[in-house]
Amino acid sequence: MRNFNENTITDAVLERIEGATDPRIKQVSEALVRHLHAFVREVRPTQKEWEFGIDFLTRTGHMCDDKRQEFILLSDTLGVSMLVDAINHPVPEGATETTVLGPFFVQAAPEKNSGDDISGKMEGDPMLVTGSVSTVDGRPLANAVVDVWHSDDDGYYDVQQLDKIGDLAMRARFHADADGRFHFWSIKPAPYPIPHDGPVGDMLEAQGRHPWRPAHVHFMISAPGFEQLVTHVFVAGDKYLDSDVVFGVKDSLIREFVRCPPGRAPDGRTMDAEYFHLNYDFGLKQLASNAQAA
Amino acid sequence: MRNFNENTITDAVLERIEGATDPRIKQVSEALVRHLHAFVREVRPTQKEWEFGIDFLTRTGHMCDDKRQEFILLSDTLGVSMLVDAINHPVPEGATETTVLGPFFVQAAPEKNSGDDISGKMEGDPMLVTGSVSTVDGRPLANAVVDVWHSDDDGYYDVQQLDKIGDLAMRARFHADADGRFHFWSIKPAPYPIPHDGPVGDMLEAQGRHPWRPAHVHFMISAPGFEQLVTHVFVAGDKYLDSDVVFGVKDSLIREFVRCPPGRAPDGRTMDAEYFHLNYDFGLKQLASNAQAA
Repeated sequence: MRNFNENTITDAVLERIEGATDPRIKQVSEALVRHLHAFVREVRPTQKEWEFGIDFLTRTGHMCDDKRQEFILLSDTLGVSMLVDAINHPVPEGATETTVLGPFFVQAAPEKNSGDDISGKMEGDPMLVTGSVSTVDGRPLANAVVDVWHSDDDGYYDVQQLDKIGDLAMRARFHADADGRFHFWSIKPAPYPIPHDGPVGDMLEAQGRHPWRPAHVHFMISAPGFEQLVTHVFVAGDKYLDSDVVFGVKDSLIREFVRCPPGRAPDGRTMDAEYFHLNYDFGLKQLASNAQAA
Repeated sequence: MRNFNENTITDAVLERIEGATDPRIKQVSEALVRHLHAFVREVRPTQKEWEFGIDFLTRTGHMCDDKRQEFILLSDTLGVSMLVDAINHPVPEGATETTVLGPFFVQAAPEKNSGDDISGKMEGDPMLVTGSVSTVDGRPLANAVVDVWHSDDDGYYDVQQLDKIGDLAMRARFHADADGRFHFWSIKPAPYPIPHDGPVGDMLEAQGRHPWRPAHVHFMISAPGFEQLVTHVFVAGDKYLDSDVVFGVKDSLIREFVRCPPGRAPDGRTMDAEYFHLNYDFGLKQLASNAQAA
């Protein structure tokens, strides 16, 4: 166990981790060492480049706090998040496709009642969202928990501007009704660049990439016995649909946010100004254990 | 550029970084994406495991400050640092072998004169270090800059205990004399565990590994026209020589730290107590550009 060279060190490290007691930790550690060493052997970094890598990771870590998760941004922009999503979420017929969680989800979103306006003090084009939650074969999922969150019309989330706006906004938790339906008012989100004043922004610039995401509304939907759905609905026609910086767009998740004239909205509210209307019907996949029982 | 699945997303990301203008950034980015995705496809992390990975990297970043570099520890313990070292330092006959820099090097070490005692207020077994710096064919390198640093007899470096000891100690910069020679006094270092109260320590424990390094003295030696040498000299007989947690040991870097009786030391100093004597003669490799000119 001495005198390792470029070709023998990988086996030496693999031998050292043979004592891992948890088989999954052993498996992941071994794969990490093999792939990481293969990467290093391929690119043959200089000592300076290795130092740059260490510094890049350190700066990425230092950028992370309760409002910013730079490592999630790194995972997202390298396509890793969508790869993990694809591995974990094969989608059967009738189930809504999934996409990245993103870094702006908040565990304890304010509970709201169907029909509430969740825009807080934010200004923008009014948006009515109507939707339903059902099984893959169309049975409504009464009382499904629907978390929603989205950006303002400048592309910023509430948590990025709490100093200015004071409270969470454009974010809420709803419970679907007996027919699996819910609706709420907010403001129409805009496309936005992911936070790019940190190491991930530097990386994107060096890679010749823009930092933009097409406009979208996030949904996280849960019901007992069903797989939690994490997804977005994207605004049809957005100029970034084909170059989402985090590779999150799927055709089935794009919808027209229909421009509607002033007047009586579908939920009965009378609108003085024009507004946008998004409707999306979500399908949840049964958990494997339940599917067997069914 | 939509609807990516487990198999198509890698090409999508590679296509996106084709616009990188710097060819090296493009090359490294492409290799990173390919190897990272191959790792993810092999281990098929659950969403929870991905979250653990994000959290592990974030904690590693948060552990880094001006006294602690957890990402270097991670690189060292996964064998990456020694792999990068091996790639960058093929060693011709007569040149001293290299090993890891480690996280405890300090740029502005105190300048000392040959013969000085650099132990500061630290207690331990006295150690005399004598050495020389020459070319691979034995010509002395007068005035070579010799940085040295090592741990105390509990295995801690000065920078890990500045609150207690106040000043840098067991660390200095010397200039070799006209014959390429230098010597200094300090205390004999002990084997030590790398800092293991952070994420890297958690990883080692999960992998069934101990965190120890065999006792050693660090050297960084420079002379104009020669490749900077970064290496250690290890204490012969140390119980961790065959299981160094960072894979840094090479036979040619192990030396007897000779136990000597009280009396007149080789440098003329009279010792009341017994002491240890390390001698090592270093060989520096010419820079490629110089070698061509020669």
